[in-house]
Amino acid sequence: MRIAAPLAMAACLVATSPALAAPKAEDAIRYRQSVYTVIGWNFGTLADMAKDKQPFDAGEFTLRADRIADLAPQLLEGFPPGSDTGAKTGAKATIWTDRAGFEAKMQDFVDAARALSQAAHGGDEATMKERFKATAGTCKACHDQYRSRN
Amino acid sequence: MRIAAPLAMAACLVATSPALAAPKAEDAIRYRQSVYTVIGWNFGTLADMAKDKQPFDAGEFTLRADRIADLAPQLLEGFPPGSDTGAKTGAKATIWTDRAGFEAKMQDFVDAARALSQAAHGGDEATMKERFKATAGTCKACHDQYRSRN
Repeated sequence: MRIAAPLAMAACLVATSPALAAPKAEDAIRYRQSVYTVIGWNFGTLADMAKDKQPFDAGEFTLRADRIADLAPQLLEGFPPGSDTGAKTGAKATIWTDRAGFEAKMQDFVDAARALSQAAHGGDEATMKERFKATAGTCKACHDQYRSRN
Repeated sequence: MRIAAPLAMAACLVATSPALAAPKAEDAIRYRQSVYTVIGWNFGTLADMAKDKQPFDAGEFTLRADRIADLAPQLLEGFPPGSDTGAKTGAKATIWTDRAGFEAKMQDFVDAARALSQAAHGGDEATMKERFKATAGTCKACHDQYRSRN
């Protein structure tokens, strides 16, 4: 069975995996930045619709909202101990010294994203736009406190 | 209502959104590379378990498999026309000149990832490991043909 090559390739991925007791800081940093990038890509469509820069499309809005709701809970594991340094990062050290505060802000985002997705499935455009703004507010609240602009 | 700041922040994201008729090549490149990074991060746990480098944990395997199954369909929109250049990318030009071939390979990955997730929910460890290897094979098949090593 030709499994050697795929397993060899998979082996290359092990180093970046969270399965190890403590992922390398640079891998965690790259991972979390990637999740934020994917969230931002999806967020842009919602922002366009909320500001009437593109026609409102309930199906597209729902697709993007669902993706963000699924991605939000994937962020926290990207902030393991020791990953305040190791590569270029906007994460402030307070993420680890004020862990409870950071995790509360993260949970606000997870909750808002889920509510946004639920509103999308509910189908009411006004509610969807309101929940979008609320979600954007949770991004800003966490960034204001835990992300540096360096 | 304090919406100005969140909307201003959301405006920063519009440039990276797929909502515009043609996303900027550098944004598409960064987006797709990010999706691959998140897939790779999740794949590492599965590889560890498939190779008995960490104890098999059905719940963890299922979590990672589900994430990969959700992420795989998010890749294709990261390869819009014109994004063969614009930033450092491993994407070969044949992705666009042989689009049907590329999309077939991408679909193989999407299908394998879904089958992997289904196997995880089915709960049989041997099947889960088999489907993992099959999925890794679809990664390799696409990379061998459409990714350059430069």
